[in-house]
Amino acid sequence: MEETGISREHILSILKNAKSEDTSYDRVLSSMCTYPHEIAVLAHTQFIEANMGDPGLFPGTYGLEKEVLKMFGSLLHHNNSPEKCGYLTTGGTESNIQAIRSMVNARRDINHPNVVMPESAHFSFDKVADLSGIEIRKASLDNTLKVDLNSVVSLIDDNTIGLVGIAGTTEFGQIDPIESLSEIALDRDFFLHVDGAFGGFILPFMDMEYHYDFEVEGVTSMTIDPHKMGLSTIPSGGLLFREPEYLDDLEIHTPYLSINKQYSLTGTRSGASVASTYAVMKHLGREGYRSVVDQCMEQTREIVSGAKALGIETVIDPVMNIVALNVPQADDVRKKLLDDFGWHVSITRNPRALRLVIMPHIDNNTIELFLADLEKLV
Amino acid sequence: MEETGISREHILSILKNAKSEDTSYDRVLSSMCTYPHEIAVLAHTQFIEANMGDPGLFPGTYGLEKEVLKMFGSLLHHNNSPEKCGYLTTGGTESNIQAIRSMVNARRDINHPNVVMPESAHFSFDKVADLSGIEIRKASLDNTLKVDLNSVVSLIDDNTIGLVGIAGTTEFGQIDPIESLSEIALDRDFFLHVDGAFGGFILPFMDMEYHYDFEVEGVTSMTIDPHKMGLSTIPSGGLLFREPEYLDDLEIHTPYLSINKQYSLTGTRSGASVASTYAVMKHLGREGYRSVVDQCMEQTREIVSGAKALGIETVIDPVMNIVALNVPQADDVRKKLLDDFGWHVSITRNPRALRLVIMPHIDNNTIELFLADLEKLV
Repeated sequence: MEETGISREHILSILKNAKSEDTSYDRVLSSMCTYPHEIAVLAHTQFIEANMGDPGLFPGTYGLEKEVLKMFGSLLHHNNSPEKCGYLTTGGTESNIQAIRSMVNARRDINHPNVVMPESAHFSFDKVADLSGIEIRKASLDNTLKVDLNSVVSLIDDNTIGLVGIAGTTEFGQIDPIESLSEIALDRDFFLHVDGAFGGFILPFMDMEYHYDFEVEGVTSMTIDPHKMGLSTIPSGGLLFREPEYLDDLEIHTPYLSINKQYSLTGTRSGASVASTYAVMKHLGREGYRSVVDQCMEQTREIVSGAKALGIETVIDPVMNIVALNVPQADDVRKKLLDDFGWHVSITRNPRALRLVIMPHIDNNTIELFLADLEKLV
Repeated sequence: MEETGISREHILSILKNAKSEDTSYDRVLSSMCTYPHEIAVLAHTQFIEANMGDPGLFPGTYGLEKEVLKMFGSLLHHNNSPEKCGYLTTGGTESNIQAIRSMVNARRDINHPNVVMPESAHFSFDKVADLSGIEIRKASLDNTLKVDLNSVVSLIDDNTIGLVGIAGTTEFGQIDPIESLSEIALDRDFFLHVDGAFGGFILPFMDMEYHYDFEVEGVTSMTIDPHKMGLSTIPSGGLLFREPEYLDDLEIHTPYLSINKQYSLTGTRSGASVASTYAVMKHLGREGYRSVVDQCMEQTREIVSGAKALGIETVIDPVMNIVALNVPQADDVRKKLLDDFGWHVSITRNPRALRLVIMPHIDNNTIELFLADLEKLV
């Protein structure tokens, strides 16, 4: 590190250069992130120094967090004081880690606990396993890429404490049969965590009705991520439990703060993200999000029909704004799309298909350009 | 959640109200956070959409992260390609969790591992224990509130895999005898993690020379927090290992991203914090931080001498900008300072003393006002 600092102007020019090396989202079809809404950025900046790790110092921001939790509750059919049942995390990984940690802590009577989840579960659960040493058992999928219930049941044993279902799988945007998982969970007194990191800000705004949230009796916790389809700033995640008691299982004693206990995984915690999430959710309302989701689904249909016109089928009928295209030599096509045309797409694992996430930064024109380039390669 | 969104103007007025309920830092003497530097906020906002969880999309921001790691390396006497040996975390808790996780993963041959650390270790280590199930053994302190080496040695057994030392304890700002801990660690082939979340941005800029970082041979990892005395934005933490291999022990496989493996705890990760930390470190340079630390230490001396003039002694001679004042009925005094005068201070556990953190937002005038109010109560 240099002895003497460099000027503001010099720093800004270095930052400008770095920024120009970053990919703009225009041709990014591989990410679940997008540009945050302008009002989210404005709110974020205004609350930049707020630390939710010490909420006694920031009662105003803490009040905004309670309002966000009430809005989550309203979206996810949670009618039991949602403002007491969760908090804003750094994202889906923290939410998933904490949901599993809460299960484990509530069932300390079980010595080597395991949790059963679909093969399609996000890699954050591998972090949970690595971090906590608890066993994650992965159930196979049916031919629509939902979790196979027989496989789930076959993996359950005396040490099973909970199940996980996904509302919007990362690879295919599929929704697991949460109601059936709920029956299994209720029968056996298991926890049931639903990972709606992606789907949580999509499913409430679709015409089709799905049953995947707290209206399903056995669901005990949910992950929902404002910094994906919620158009909030990074790092904005959400975790909601059915009852306030689940949060207690996460608490550790905290001397020298304005509070005595802390349930969050991180210590210092962004109040900027709280304000940002509050602002964009209040500003858009259901109407605003419905229009965002409508647009993404419209583009999704465009890409599916355009691909079909090229003779390319989808792996499953898209449920939400994620499309997996069954192209031969998908890895080669992916590489050429990037090298020749600058398109960022990703690859699903099984089957190996081209995976596209149709986020709000994707417009009609982008879809047309993409399909034209894809045509040159297949 | 409402059907119709509310206007931008209405949102901004709600945010303004919430902000007015938050405590301004002017009378906060209890927090290790402060206002971030103006250039940090500017950089943060410019990189608001950058996601370091998918660094292939953001090579410019990723380059800035490498530069920050090099600067950490320079501050902490790390000469072995620091840019390959760490990453920017969400804060001290994530850094401490990951340091311990890396130890555990590297010593999978040990069945019920334990780590020995001082009683004065931050509560984030209790989260580690709760989360991972590994045993945390707490060594007692000597009469200067450094860890007692005999106590450390007495807690070591065949399942011990590592030690933790603190460079700037949260309660008293004390520094453990890292060189002696290093000897113990080297003798027994243990890991030695140094938590410099607070001290990492202070000790390199003090006149007094301390030996607590990678120049001490046995130190294998360090926590350093830019969002405390580094004047960066929340969430900005840092974790640095001695060798790149320690990071490998944190990696999990990540399909569908621009990278194949991920070592961070969170998935989506703030690029804004990376740019913010880069900007403020480059802008201040050693000179700038030295002047920040000088000011804090000057105010610290003021408060100590002012308190002595009131007949109040400190628990230890302050090593850095944390003061613990031995006042009778500390809890009552704390409450009155808040209720009657709006001062936020905290309390140390043992002994129960008034704890003040003299951050850069505290000026001469504040110290005078505080001492005048304190005088009325003692």
